[in-house]
Amino acid sequence: MSVHSHSIITPQIIDFHSPFTLQNGQVLPHFSLAVETYGTLNANKNNAVLICHALSGDHHVAGRHHPDDRYAGWWDNMVGSGKPIDTDKFFVVGVNNLGGCAGSTGPLSPHPSGEGSYGADFPMVTVRDWVRSQALLADHFGISQWAAVVGGSLGGMQALQWTLEYPERIRHALVIASSPRLSAQNIAFNDVARQAIITDPDFHGGHYARHHVLPKRGLRIARMMGHITYLAEYGLGHKFGRQRRRPDYQYHYDIEFEVESYLRHQGDKFSGRFDANSYLLMTKALDYFDPAAEYGHDLQKALSRVQARFFVASFSSDWRFSPSRSHELVKALIGARKAVQYIEVESHHGHDAFLMEDPPYINAVRAYMQNIETSS
Amino acid sequence: MSVHSHSIITPQIIDFHSPFTLQNGQVLPHFSLAVETYGTLNANKNNAVLICHALSGDHHVAGRHHPDDRYAGWWDNMVGSGKPIDTDKFFVVGVNNLGGCAGSTGPLSPHPSGEGSYGADFPMVTVRDWVRSQALLADHFGISQWAAVVGGSLGGMQALQWTLEYPERIRHALVIASSPRLSAQNIAFNDVARQAIITDPDFHGGHYARHHVLPKRGLRIARMMGHITYLAEYGLGHKFGRQRRRPDYQYHYDIEFEVESYLRHQGDKFSGRFDANSYLLMTKALDYFDPAAEYGHDLQKALSRVQARFFVASFSSDWRFSPSRSHELVKALIGARKAVQYIEVESHHGHDAFLMEDPPYINAVRAYMQNIETSS
Repeated sequence: MSVHSHSIITPQIIDFHSPFTLQNGQVLPHFSLAVETYGTLNANKNNAVLICHALSGDHHVAGRHHPDDRYAGWWDNMVGSGKPIDTDKFFVVGVNNLGGCAGSTGPLSPHPSGEGSYGADFPMVTVRDWVRSQALLADHFGISQWAAVVGGSLGGMQALQWTLEYPERIRHALVIASSPRLSAQNIAFNDVARQAIITDPDFHGGHYARHHVLPKRGLRIARMMGHITYLAEYGLGHKFGRQRRRPDYQYHYDIEFEVESYLRHQGDKFSGRFDANSYLLMTKALDYFDPAAEYGHDLQKALSRVQARFFVASFSSDWRFSPSRSHELVKALIGARKAVQYIEVESHHGHDAFLMEDPPYINAVRAYMQNIETSS
Repeated sequence: MSVHSHSIITPQIIDFHSPFTLQNGQVLPHFSLAVETYGTLNANKNNAVLICHALSGDHHVAGRHHPDDRYAGWWDNMVGSGKPIDTDKFFVVGVNNLGGCAGSTGPLSPHPSGEGSYGADFPMVTVRDWVRSQALLADHFGISQWAAVVGGSLGGMQALQWTLEYPERIRHALVIASSPRLSAQNIAFNDVARQAIITDPDFHGGHYARHHVLPKRGLRIARMMGHITYLAEYGLGHKFGRQRRRPDYQYHYDIEFEVESYLRHQGDKFSGRFDANSYLLMTKALDYFDPAAEYGHDLQKALSRVQARFFVASFSSDWRFSPSRSHELVKALIGARKAVQYIEVESHHGHDAFLMEDPPYINAVRAYMQNIETSS
């Protein structure tokens, strides 16, 4: 069945009943993953593609849940019939990460004790935990090897981790606008975001649900700041410049400049839809990711076990994960004599470019995916 | 008298008794400026140098207030006997801006009504207001023309504004790590900082004093975020990298990475010493600054009236006011056939480099100041 932007997609909840031990030693007695699939798994089950989401994404990658949904899934321009990740060829799986807030087990889920939700008691999860839970998901579908695992930003980290954790279970990794580890500046921005949330008086140590409030103020500030880092200075300047609501200065703290209006709107929207505990968990997973660390901080050594072929893309104006972070990965892959195709895309969209439709980028993904062999 | 890092400096409060009309139309019935001076005004009164401060600075530029002060003034490495701005040659004036919180009239000052302090009722001030109040200060000292007005960042904007507002009253403008106007990204960061403060439940619409609380949470977040933008990614990486307190991940939201410790400490320190209303006012003054606007956004045209000679300096790793912002100013000055000396300093210190001692920078300021003629 064809998948288009207006196709109605029904998410599934898949339950896993065995205890799942996390990297931090804590155990989830059971868990569920919210999933969407697009296209058909072929007889040889070798056409499966996993889409990993970034900080605020989820399993809703393409199509719509309801005919009147205003927006399609977050990567609808990339995934569908005839699109770069072509669902007429591939069986594509979108999954909400453990610890998320869109349907998979996370802080909003019932606490195993039976009293309320996990809230702040939900354990910290890592990129490795996600990949291990996604391997159980692959087992569920009878997929022994992904044709490709694809992700941007934090999603790209999961694709990379897949090649290290299960070298034989992934043929291609598409690592887009990502990094083999966060820089001090990345961690610093994450910590400010977390502090904004944690010091919100409505946070209550993460147990805001018990108090029937939400730490919206903190989440809003975190998102506003984050949003600046997703966009390029040039792009922001091009879009908003110093444009104002009124020609004269108003000398107040309400919205004067259009860029203020845009950012506050983004913050308001996000703080109404996203769970603060999930946001905190996602940022920590980002901070912790550093696969080279256990190989004496030698990324090339870490990659020696890799069997997958890589597609790596970066964007010229991305200052959150700048092209130099992708260069590190590409150099280490070449040093380890692995197959890697790299494209550095000229773009004014900053980090968010991985979600946009810059043609050289879209075409490169399309060409790469077309060349992945599948057979039934 | 020589001025050294351990010299004891006594600030003065200078009162102005005439009503002062601000750019926004509001009137201060009277006001005071907190000032420090270093060196001696010569008989011809042509050796006076004004130091303008940036967002969180004040009039305490050099020396110490008490023998046991841990730190000297904020530009003690630049101002003093034998230093680049040599107080054996120049009479140097440091001033706290109107609306500040270090002694000049501002939100902490008594409200003219006699009830409490101004708080949120203190009017918005602009760079032009500051320059006009500094002109009254020059009158007070009998200084008809500054040998130089010097400032970094927001301070540099004041030096630039001086050349436009009082072309005949300034011989040299030293505009360091500054910009002829904020970009959309600059304004965006400022607005997030303001929103963090304003949405702090202890802000009370700026009348926190009446409630005997301080919006420390918001101010702390604002400063933490600001601090990231003052530092270069490379510098932050070089200083902290991914260093942690403990070798193993702790899986909690307390400090794990050293960069978190540093930032939180900076935020805590600042939120204990700086007034939130003043912070808000300073960021708005930054946003509003755009001297080219009233000349059809033609900076060269705006500069046509300038008589001063310029020294402009930028720093390679400054991404808050990148070298390209200084290039705009330099190009416009050259286009307007004005005298300008420009240095772009290779530095890992980011925006904060203007406060540091990178030798090429310090030496360039020294050489420029040595060549300024004074005669008595």
